[in-house]
Amino acid sequence: MTQIAIVLYPQFTALDFIGPYEVLRALPDAEVRFVWHEPGPIVADSGVLVVGATHSFDETPAPDVVLVPGGPGFLSASQDEKVLDWLRAVRPGAQWTTSVCTGSIVLAAAGLLDGKPATTHWSSMAGLTLHGAKAVSDERVVRALPDDDLVTAAGVSAGIDLALWLAEQIAGRARAEAIQLIIEYDPQPHLDSGHRSKASAGTIATSTMLLTRDVDKPELLKASARLLWDRALTTVRSRR
Amino acid sequence: MTQIAIVLYPQFTALDFIGPYEVLRALPDAEVRFVWHEPGPIVADSGVLVVGATHSFDETPAPDVVLVPGGPGFLSASQDEKVLDWLRAVRPGAQWTTSVCTGSIVLAAAGLLDGKPATTHWSSMAGLTLHGAKAVSDERVVRALPDDDLVTAAGVSAGIDLALWLAEQIAGRARAEAIQLIIEYDPQPHLDSGHRSKASAGTIATSTMLLTRDVDKPELLKASARLLWDRALTTVRSRR
Repeated sequence: MTQIAIVLYPQFTALDFIGPYEVLRALPDAEVRFVWHEPGPIVADSGVLVVGATHSFDETPAPDVVLVPGGPGFLSASQDEKVLDWLRAVRPGAQWTTSVCTGSIVLAAAGLLDGKPATTHWSSMAGLTLHGAKAVSDERVVRALPDDDLVTAAGVSAGIDLALWLAEQIAGRARAEAIQLIIEYDPQPHLDSGHRSKASAGTIATSTMLLTRDVDKPELLKASARLLWDRALTTVRSRR
Repeated sequence: MTQIAIVLYPQFTALDFIGPYEVLRALPDAEVRFVWHEPGPIVADSGVLVVGATHSFDETPAPDVVLVPGGPGFLSASQDEKVLDWLRAVRPGAQWTTSVCTGSIVLAAAGLLDGKPATTHWSSMAGLTLHGAKAVSDERVVRALPDDDLVTAAGVSAGIDLALWLAEQIAGRARAEAIQLIIEYDPQPHLDSGHRSKASAGTIATSTMLLTRDVDKPELLKASARLLWDRALTTVRSRR
């Protein structure tokens, strides 16, 4: 059995983990769990999508694969000691510890990416650096070190590429190809502005403006402010 | 305001609509609704993912965009008179009526695709034909007729391509490009078996076997049998 634990938290971005879920659930003898403090409904960044956490962290002490999605809620999740303690506790026993989008900042906040190459959503590279990782902006799927069990993916839809890669590592090429065919992952976007390097300045500006629509909420602004305060105080206290 | 109604039903395939949701929710002044007989939790084909319907069909009489996802539950949904009646009722007022994967068979069962080109998951082309549409297997996004408001997409992940196309139609190229950048849709799968024409016989066989894992359930077998019975009886009764 391959137990796949997908971490949820309020204000997640749904495509970040639904892509990987749709791939990884087709692994041989796969058990997918959605884990959070406790089972129950959790609301996405959109405020309209509700997804159920199926298991608590305490019920899930030994997953084989851990996947942390991104979303504006990463700000709170990366300051949630229960989340960070669980990630630290399960990582040694897990075969793969992974993230999509700003999920990597949660892994970094848990101390799992110190000094290691990792990626995140293009708009959050600074956040990754702030937490001690080496931000990589030109690769879609980044393995922390050769043979490392930590793998991070770029923003949102990049989780599908990550999961297909994981599927091949776990179950071999034939199975991964069959999964790719099941989800008909033969992408043919008619536009080509999916990476910052390909997008115009106007597109980047509009995207940045749109991204704030999910972040401009009191609880997230508070989490962001707390994070910056913590960093400022740590810096001040380290000066002797 | 652009009201986007995503139809849910038990045994849906989540990526079918989470891809489009993540794109369409970034349209200007977008309101996304998940509609079903009544609001409440609905379980996916995996049996492990639960998503909340936010509104009933009755509460949603005039959506601007309708999107019907696929999944094994299409068998029951395509025989659900409430679903079919609602689709027929809202289509004339909608700007776009769309589907992903086997969602097109639900549209066809409502009589919206009679004699028109449409697509679906590669494994379900026969089902689309059975319901009177012209099955197209070599295009990822199919508009029923030039200038038609009916657009169907191929399996599962094809919904992302569909939604980006819709985003351009609704809000223009600049906005669609910004949305593509937000979700970093710059796909780079390391394997290339996402379409039937690219997959080996072995891959197709394995995928077909894996697809049955979600379908081999009593309620779906019953729905499938009822559908075939209905068709057989209709054929017999039409012979004079």
